[in-house]
Amino acid sequence: MGESLCHFQKKEGKRPMTQFQQYSNIQRLRQFCENPIDLTKEGVLSKERLEKMKAESCGFKLLYATERVNDDVMQALFDLGAEAHVLKKMHDMQSGEVINKIEGYESENRMVLHTAMRDFFEDQNQAKAAREASKLAWDEIEKLRAFMKEIDKKDFTDLVQIGIGGSDLGPRALTIACHAYHKEHRRGHFISNVDPDDATQVINDVDLSKTLFVVVSKSGSTLETLTNEELVRERLRNAGLNPKDHFIAVTGKGSPMDDPSRYRASFYIWDYIGGRYSVTSMVGGVMLSFVLGVDGFLEILKGASKIDKIALSKDMNVNLPLVNALLGIWNRNFLHLPTVAIIPYSQALLRFPAHLQQLDMESNGKSIVKKGDRADFETGPIIWGEPGTNGQHSFYQLIHQGTTIVPVELIGFKESQYSKDLEIQDTTSQEKLLSNLFAQSVALAIGQKSDNPNKFFAGNRPNHLLLGARLTPETVGSLLSYFENKVAFQGFIWNINSFDQEGVQLGKVLANKFIELFKAKKHKQKSDFDLGKNYLEFLEDLNGF
Amino acid sequence: MGESLCHFQKKEGKRPMTQFQQYSNIQRLRQFCENPIDLTKEGVLSKERLEKMKAESCGFKLLYATERVNDDVMQALFDLGAEAHVLKKMHDMQSGEVINKIEGYESENRMVLHTAMRDFFEDQNQAKAAREASKLAWDEIEKLRAFMKEIDKKDFTDLVQIGIGGSDLGPRALTIACHAYHKEHRRGHFISNVDPDDATQVINDVDLSKTLFVVVSKSGSTLETLTNEELVRERLRNAGLNPKDHFIAVTGKGSPMDDPSRYRASFYIWDYIGGRYSVTSMVGGVMLSFVLGVDGFLEILKGASKIDKIALSKDMNVNLPLVNALLGIWNRNFLHLPTVAIIPYSQALLRFPAHLQQLDMESNGKSIVKKGDRADFETGPIIWGEPGTNGQHSFYQLIHQGTTIVPVELIGFKESQYSKDLEIQDTTSQEKLLSNLFAQSVALAIGQKSDNPNKFFAGNRPNHLLLGARLTPETVGSLLSYFENKVAFQGFIWNINSFDQEGVQLGKVLANKFIELFKAKKHKQKSDFDLGKNYLEFLEDLNGF
Repeated sequence: MGESLCHFQKKEGKRPMTQFQQYSNIQRLRQFCENPIDLTKEGVLSKERLEKMKAESCGFKLLYATERVNDDVMQALFDLGAEAHVLKKMHDMQSGEVINKIEGYESENRMVLHTAMRDFFEDQNQAKAAREASKLAWDEIEKLRAFMKEIDKKDFTDLVQIGIGGSDLGPRALTIACHAYHKEHRRGHFISNVDPDDATQVINDVDLSKTLFVVVSKSGSTLETLTNEELVRERLRNAGLNPKDHFIAVTGKGSPMDDPSRYRASFYIWDYIGGRYSVTSMVGGVMLSFVLGVDGFLEILKGASKIDKIALSKDMNVNLPLVNALLGIWNRNFLHLPTVAIIPYSQALLRFPAHLQQLDMESNGKSIVKKGDRADFETGPIIWGEPGTNGQHSFYQLIHQGTTIVPVELIGFKESQYSKDLEIQDTTSQEKLLSNLFAQSVALAIGQKSDNPNKFFAGNRPNHLLLGARLTPETVGSLLSYFENKVAFQGFIWNINSFDQEGVQLGKVLANKFIELFKAKKHKQKSDFDLGKNYLEFLEDLNGF
Repeated sequence: MGESLCHFQKKEGKRPMTQFQQYSNIQRLRQFCENPIDLTKEGVLSKERLEKMKAESCGFKLLYATERVNDDVMQALFDLGAEAHVLKKMHDMQSGEVINKIEGYESENRMVLHTAMRDFFEDQNQAKAAREASKLAWDEIEKLRAFMKEIDKKDFTDLVQIGIGGSDLGPRALTIACHAYHKEHRRGHFISNVDPDDATQVINDVDLSKTLFVVVSKSGSTLETLTNEELVRERLRNAGLNPKDHFIAVTGKGSPMDDPSRYRASFYIWDYIGGRYSVTSMVGGVMLSFVLGVDGFLEILKGASKIDKIALSKDMNVNLPLVNALLGIWNRNFLHLPTVAIIPYSQALLRFPAHLQQLDMESNGKSIVKKGDRADFETGPIIWGEPGTNGQHSFYQLIHQGTTIVPVELIGFKESQYSKDLEIQDTTSQEKLLSNLFAQSVALAIGQKSDNPNKFFAGNRPNHLLLGARLTPETVGSLLSYFENKVAFQGFIWNINSFDQEGVQLGKVLANKFIELFKAKKHKQKSDFDLGKNYLEFLEDLNGF
């Protein structure tokens, strides 16, 4: 469009600039972004550029020649990372420093130790807090192994996870992603929504006598989860079954759910594991061990831990999550692009974008920095996406020719999961899938000139490719950690707290007020319930808050 | 943020303004948007405002007091609609005028008659083209009824739809939405992605001898669909079954797939039915009739047709899709908000946002107006969403406290689908669900003051509520048509062609080039296939294009 891509927000009043605005590399990058590289120029996507603009580790290649960056921009971005001490902050996080806090205000004041949940392999972090957290996590895995051994002897075919948000999206995304590796005759299901139809549909689909339920809530007080637990307990009782024989708990020690008299087994999580970072704790562990076996779950942990170590690397050709984070900063704060589309060319990653949506948006959708000042720059983008090639037949129209530019993170694998494929016209489906993946990356970057304005593609749509060999439990763990660490890096650069979620509280408070209104209404005039009328009355009453 | 919400794009060079920029009401609205209503002020959400800011028809209520509009804005928006002749254009569309075109350039030059696919009920459109299209559509429904009668006598338990984009997302969304109404022992599945794992997983889940496959492609030449069809035919042959006994075709007359020798039955669609508008044609008809019965499918059509008629109404208190379209124009072109989140508080609508993503973004993600000039304003937004209350535990953090404002369309129903619910602490799950729905609408609008910056909610997050009695086949049809007509109205106002999709072509062309490169590579060096290396070589070669 005509206007400069570099319209920084005006400063308001006399508030001092945040630290982010004061970094010298922000000034440098602001100059570069007045005139970003034009990818549509013939020859720009040269072999030299393609070979230079890449990072590689743990079997993954990140190819970013199709982003609107050049050497100077990348150097300034890495210098910005250094200026913001991102590697030290990452090390602090993994070592158990109390980084979940807002200075000078009431806040969670917690360590952030999801990386310790999988730090059982090489180069273990030696900090005391991290060691202790890993030890506790390993104890739970041993408990889990014993429990699964016992379950293996019984005739349980189905496990239903009852949880919401972080206790749902991540475990669900990974359970689906690893479907090709599920044990025979083992099925995993999820109930999340307080909508009663959600539970009904899942319950209708299983044989209750052969089904286990794992209830996951760190606080043990999540409205949706407890409601669904009660719904299921009622159904079990109605079927003549003892709920205790079927229920497993994953919760914090001392929570209202920490009550072994009601659960066949209980597993623990800790306050230093945020919901959206909890997949590799028992939050994901019970389900993933049920469908994959405990060893399959450990494969996931191994893959995740590998990337945690890579996230500590100074080498910009190796530290994949950092490169991705920096590209995101460029697109968000300098090219001012409000969203990021994450498009896995792998049907098994169907629900991965929904998990990443939570991971990223709940972590970095913030407006204050860690000292409590208002952010005078854009923070976390809106994350969305669906698998390719499906998306090509859907929203790609806008990505190619719309008026809002969408940076795209493309993900692909050399091999399919099942290796059941067919050559049609000399190429396999997998080759056709990859051809589409590569083609989109190039098409978005280079565009197309045409005298027919409807066949004109402006190009310069920033995108990059993350390529792996095959989606396995190990690589899905790496992928998970890649995004977790990307999000953390961006929070470090923006100097925001990526580990709390105060923004979800107001809705909870107001929902409880509505629930009270429902009750009051019910007792006064039980039969005359009109939704629209009620809503209006409710809202009217709300003015009194 | 500090800067004005009204930063219109600078005009480039001396190109004349588009018609949209010349509408007198655009000037009027531009003045209003300098100072939009502040929803956080005490008393703004008054009973008077709540009762005034609503529209109602077909059992749905649209409550938009929580949008940043007042009487003047709404009047100007309706005047803008009149100035853009939206009702005449809607009438023209439903009557079969050739509106899918770009004047002066090669384009599709087609009628747009998806509304005729369901115009079997009240107030039928009397235009000749519409009548003929409806007659043809009804003939297909009669064929379908006969076919289903025959199928009912056989032991087919599963139907797998093979299609992508419009032949997948809409039918899939509605099949899931109507799950509570499915016939017993009837299951619907979908294969869409060219990723071979997609087909493998579905095939593993069915008994092939009892499974039908419906292949859907208007052109009969969609790469993904034909590839998956061949994959399945191979699997049937390997199982000793005759593919012809299991395959049904939905395609255009004369397409490569229009070959009765290969299909047990064939149903037709026409060039005036765009993929993303095709759910109510045979594209959705075969699957929905299989799982719901033909009468269930007709319920969907009835609900859709009702809203088509409402879309012709001048009454701003009744024309729901028009009100929604105008609110969207305000948020997009005046408040400059780049995305729209659509959040159904109904788990059954799980995949509805994915369908709406295609419907809206493929229709209105365009950069030229119907005369071929470049749009000098923002067109279709990015559409995304997941069901509530799930979203509350995920991305709502950003919606409440992020730096990018997200308009939210909330959808809810008074009753659940299964009516299997439980009172816990004096309220049902459905009441808890609705309490959350109402609470979010209010919370987004009014925000919350706090001395703790982390507990501060700026409010003024525009949103509205669409409320219905219950999600049934009929109301899901209405919901579908509500969004179809909303999208059409926005295209009419922007004066863009919402019915072609040239933006998907470039990727297809390049994908074919990559497929050729794969073949060439294969024959030269079959064993040394390295994905990353290939990609680099491929891209290098691409410079020669």
